[in-house]
Amino acid sequence: MPQVRIGICAPSTPFSREDAARVSAVAAASHPDAELVFADQCYSSAGHFAGNDQERCDAFVRMANDTSLDAIWFARGGYGAARIAEDALQQLTDAASRKTYMGYSDGGNLLGALYRAGIGKQVHGSMPVDIQREGGVDAIRRALDWLVHQNPSALEEHVVPDQKYAAFNLMTLSMMVGTPLLPNLRDHVLMIEEISEYLYAFDRAMFNVTSHLSSAGLTGLRLGRVSAVPENDRPFGESEEEICQRWCARHGIDYLGRADIGHDAANKIVPFGMLPKQSA
Amino acid sequence: MPQVRIGICAPSTPFSREDAARVSAVAAASHPDAELVFADQCYSSAGHFAGNDQERCDAFVRMANDTSLDAIWFARGGYGAARIAEDALQQLTDAASRKTYMGYSDGGNLLGALYRAGIGKQVHGSMPVDIQREGGVDAIRRALDWLVHQNPSALEEHVVPDQKYAAFNLMTLSMMVGTPLLPNLRDHVLMIEEISEYLYAFDRAMFNVTSHLSSAGLTGLRLGRVSAVPENDRPFGESEEEICQRWCARHGIDYLGRADIGHDAANKIVPFGMLPKQSA
Repeated sequence: MPQVRIGICAPSTPFSREDAARVSAVAAASHPDAELVFADQCYSSAGHFAGNDQERCDAFVRMANDTSLDAIWFARGGYGAARIAEDALQQLTDAASRKTYMGYSDGGNLLGALYRAGIGKQVHGSMPVDIQREGGVDAIRRALDWLVHQNPSALEEHVVPDQKYAAFNLMTLSMMVGTPLLPNLRDHVLMIEEISEYLYAFDRAMFNVTSHLSSAGLTGLRLGRVSAVPENDRPFGESEEEICQRWCARHGIDYLGRADIGHDAANKIVPFGMLPKQSA
Repeated sequence: MPQVRIGICAPSTPFSREDAARVSAVAAASHPDAELVFADQCYSSAGHFAGNDQERCDAFVRMANDTSLDAIWFARGGYGAARIAEDALQQLTDAASRKTYMGYSDGGNLLGALYRAGIGKQVHGSMPVDIQREGGVDAIRRALDWLVHQNPSALEEHVVPDQKYAAFNLMTLSMMVGTPLLPNLRDHVLMIEEISEYLYAFDRAMFNVTSHLSSAGLTGLRLGRVSAVPENDRPFGESEEEICQRWCARHGIDYLGRADIGHDAANKIVPFGMLPKQSA
């Protein structure tokens, strides 16, 4: 008998049936006590998106309100969650509050909005799409280790009990700044990661985010991996960590060091808020 | 005798002496009543920037406080102004309030901060770097037509008396959202333009900006050119104007149509606030 039923929908961009089958096979082998339920909406396509806004919103709401599901796993990022987050939250019922929600990248829009609203538990972690990466099987297993067993070995190594955390892709977070999706991050360690942005764009987003959060009461900030940085016509002149340290110092935020998160298969688990007591 | 002295500095990225000479030659031929004063700092280089933050800030402050100059023209955008804007503003004297400041793109950070602080007149318009564009001579002449003569023929065609305006590059504006650089835009027509962003990134920034400005009391929004959009692996599914109209409708902002601004030589002049009385 499956003990944990995980609903998978795509609030952003489409997933493929082939990859879904691969993820299901990995899960069946390593986590027989989990059942993965892929929404057909994962395979829908409308321009950039996995179906239009209504379709993506409906699929998420249906699964979040489904009392037979224990968790919602976002299939993939890519952009689109910000377009449905506010509408979706207005339609959630008590069943949505008893669930865990996992994803990262663009999925951070929904994680942030749910966390702000106090609906369920949010977890920054790998997604089904990571099966495409080298080492993707490990990423899927780690995500399931947390979703199914709350296994502490899946956690980012700096996550300790009695401390609040949140984790975001930096550009995603920057686009949440000044909107109703941004949660209250007082007393949180904020972890960020970035991919495929020029260092000047990373610097610019760090200006935006640290400026806005300078009076938010963060415990501190940790920098995950900044990967696939495009080569510009001239070197930026600072490393990603120097950029991060400078903006943190400028805006009175404690820089706490690196974090083991990123757009890669090694992306470790960061539950939002404090660890559940059984994992502490 | 020169009647209008224009100081040129580079708050963002470096300019070249060759281009400075070309701009000076254009100005000498078409606007003999103007004197262009290029700061040596324009030619400095430190990594991505036209000199380090201190150097760029000092050059701007020195020119802004120089009583012998009538206007400050930003040589070029590219990123960097956000790093010096707050420090610079704290050092400005009365002389800075009697000046006009012109630029666009990354220069919007300084235009916005100055406008918010009520220091001088801000103008969204072409920069010396536009000499590199096809039609660049026209862009330089149009900018000087406004800086030297406040010639109404240089104005964006929708700019009318007794209405307030502001104009920004969208990504620049998005990174100002939630920071102390963003001015109060109540009762303003906001014009935006974009370059070199995927349509999903344009959509994302429109989410951010219209969400934040939904309660700002804008008179409305006009969309300039959205140019050099990179080709994605699939079509976005909406045009730039459909994206703009949707987000405006969503966040209760009147969409007023297109604007004749953009990252190109046809970029027309948009003075911030209301037109000076002599031009109305």
